[in-house]
Amino acid sequence: MNNSKYINYLFSYIKKMTFGNPGVIRETYGRGENITHKFLIKELNKFTKDIIIDYGGNFIALFKGKNSDKTIIIGSHLDSQKHGGNFDGLAGVIMGVCLLKKFKDSNFIPKYNIAVMGIRGEESCWFPYSYIGSKIALGSFNKQLLNNLVRSDTGKSLKFHINQSGFNVKAIASKKTKLDPKKIIAFIEPHIEQGPILEKNNISLGIVTGIRGSFRFRKAKCVGKYLHSGATPIDYRKDAVLATSMLVLEMNELWKKELKNNKDLTITFGEFFTDREEHSFAKSSGLVNFCLDVRSNSKITLRKIKKILLKKIKKIENITKTKFSLGKKTSSDPAMMNKKLIKKFELSAKKSKIKSLVMASGAGHDASVFANKDIPSIMLFIRNQHGSHNPMENMYTKHFIDVFQVLEDSIKNF
Amino acid sequence: MNNSKYINYLFSYIKKMTFGNPGVIRETYGRGENITHKFLIKELNKFTKDIIIDYGGNFIALFKGKNSDKTIIIGSHLDSQKHGGNFDGLAGVIMGVCLLKKFKDSNFIPKYNIAVMGIRGEESCWFPYSYIGSKIALGSFNKQLLNNLVRSDTGKSLKFHINQSGFNVKAIASKKTKLDPKKIIAFIEPHIEQGPILEKNNISLGIVTGIRGSFRFRKAKCVGKYLHSGATPIDYRKDAVLATSMLVLEMNELWKKELKNNKDLTITFGEFFTDREEHSFAKSSGLVNFCLDVRSNSKITLRKIKKILLKKIKKIENITKTKFSLGKKTSSDPAMMNKKLIKKFELSAKKSKIKSLVMASGAGHDASVFANKDIPSIMLFIRNQHGSHNPMENMYTKHFIDVFQVLEDSIKNF
Repeated sequence: MNNSKYINYLFSYIKKMTFGNPGVIRETYGRGENITHKFLIKELNKFTKDIIIDYGGNFIALFKGKNSDKTIIIGSHLDSQKHGGNFDGLAGVIMGVCLLKKFKDSNFIPKYNIAVMGIRGEESCWFPYSYIGSKIALGSFNKQLLNNLVRSDTGKSLKFHINQSGFNVKAIASKKTKLDPKKIIAFIEPHIEQGPILEKNNISLGIVTGIRGSFRFRKAKCVGKYLHSGATPIDYRKDAVLATSMLVLEMNELWKKELKNNKDLTITFGEFFTDREEHSFAKSSGLVNFCLDVRSNSKITLRKIKKILLKKIKKIENITKTKFSLGKKTSSDPAMMNKKLIKKFELSAKKSKIKSLVMASGAGHDASVFANKDIPSIMLFIRNQHGSHNPMENMYTKHFIDVFQVLEDSIKNF
Repeated sequence: MNNSKYINYLFSYIKKMTFGNPGVIRETYGRGENITHKFLIKELNKFTKDIIIDYGGNFIALFKGKNSDKTIIIGSHLDSQKHGGNFDGLAGVIMGVCLLKKFKDSNFIPKYNIAVMGIRGEESCWFPYSYIGSKIALGSFNKQLLNNLVRSDTGKSLKFHINQSGFNVKAIASKKTKLDPKKIIAFIEPHIEQGPILEKNNISLGIVTGIRGSFRFRKAKCVGKYLHSGATPIDYRKDAVLATSMLVLEMNELWKKELKNNKDLTITFGEFFTDREEHSFAKSSGLVNFCLDVRSNSKITLRKIKKILLKKIKKIENITKTKFSLGKKTSSDPAMMNKKLIKKFELSAKKSKIKSLVMASGAGHDASVFANKDIPSIMLFIRNQHGSHNPMENMYTKHFIDVFQVLEDSIKNF
């Protein structure tokens, strides 16, 4: 089996097992994630017997190097969005698997230990929280969340699902880990680019400088009043659809303005829905549920946008006679990738004659957790079509192999 | 039992039987409507044995007058919105019941036959079509709709539900009726006001001049693309939430502009929802489902708004790189109430010292079907709080009795 056949076999086998019509469904601590972990652990067993499962169910497959005191981790997550694409997360782990296979097949012993890590629970669509797996792996997971986080599809707690999947809630709560951060000299996360930049510029590899931080209101709402659509004059209305639409438009204008001032920013209302039980074409709506996601590589920008948001809401409430409540905020800090690693990968790309682009990551990633724990971290973006978090995401194997080559060269010359 | 006790008994008994937590649920050709009809027929039996059930399940309880060749119908519908209020529709029928009781109790024989009519299927939230019952009663119901209309909660056809309720689909299809329009000298529909005008002006009775027509797109949608919220720059987005919000705002501006030009108009987006299965805070949305309801007493205005709507959509599609499809349009014509009847009721109100307001109806009503069949028709609005189509609607018995007095006087002096 040559390299590209093996790569395609892994992707398509896992896609088949976790098919979600459309896309794939790999629930955090659920069926899809569990069987993907199980399958890849079995696969990695062919290349190393030294596989650790940590207390939270992350796997670390260690390929011993000459200097076995230092470890380079290649890892990413194995959960997916609901009806997500097959490549988001999975590509990074498969790239690690392929590297171990290559080393094993060619009897190559690397300078340092190479660990392939499969991480749990990165996508926050299952539990309203990001980086569950990597935070558990590094002992920075807040134990209260074990009970407080509830999975969106089952309504059951994170604790329940971790137990159900066979892992150790007690050890997680007491922040026990199986990784020693002091021994990790690099965390490398290959990952499909989730935006369109590499594709539009015909470049296989993105070398990431930093990861955007964010704030989110996942369960925001606007309360108005249900009123007869034909019999209620405009001045008597309290229309939640109108009010929320105003907010969407105003925040979009704000986004454009900040971009003009060269600020790094995205603003997204990904959910916006009237109440299925009570809405009707014949009533102005008394309720809109929505969520808001704001991201930037600058803490200052995030703070500023939050402040303007609250002002705009006050104004819109007055105009529309509605009432907003944003609910609980979740947030993450921006994270910087390691400058030396950036240089190293740029050099390897040049040597391998693979075009690369040094770029920021708009999306959040496990690498930010490692970076914020002072572990030198880097992300390698792989060119990908149609964005991510959707069934249409599409990574060509040839672009994967380009990035693989740069990774292999970097590791061999670490 | 005095008058107000009897009125309250009828309303509260029916509310209890059809309670929908919140509000009431009286499904067109379903449980709630069926038991309400059954109960009121039993009640009317106390005052007349002359009760006809027509092929579509509308009841007509005839109280013989001196001249039994001419009939005045007092009627309204008995279905409700999903979680609607208890008074919308029901108030009109109960007022008729109370009148027959009064005539019976006092041995009064009116000049003409008085018929109390309980009409089926007026609310178009169950089947996406208005005035099913009154159209069947008058033989103007299109038989293709029997198979084509599907109830929103069950997914089953109108035909199925009419059969299930024990009525005669075959006779409906061949436009058989039990009413003779030539004998009807007036159709009177008492109904709660569904807007706030009587309440704000402290007036019990509204005498309706005309009923707004409408056009509706009940299953419109905007298709964009699901794209990662953090990784997709503003220029690459195809955000259906943004596009639909733009349309909501632009149509609202258009509404304000037309009102300034003294046009009669309402524009409402009562439903606006991203897809529960695919939406997420971490993606810009690829799909918004929405509906649009436009009403006016002028056919010309309706036509004009539709034209502008299509233009605006084209513009927004270009800006946002999305695609709208409005789906099937349903519509109804504006209808004029009978001028002589308006005068007659104004006079009775003056005589009875009940303040009244001559006003247009923003909402559609069964009376429009009778009017458009050239039957002299009139609506009497009863003061009501909190609008309608919601569990909070609230009609005071004293205002009901005010309108009842005017009705009684008019009938006695017809």
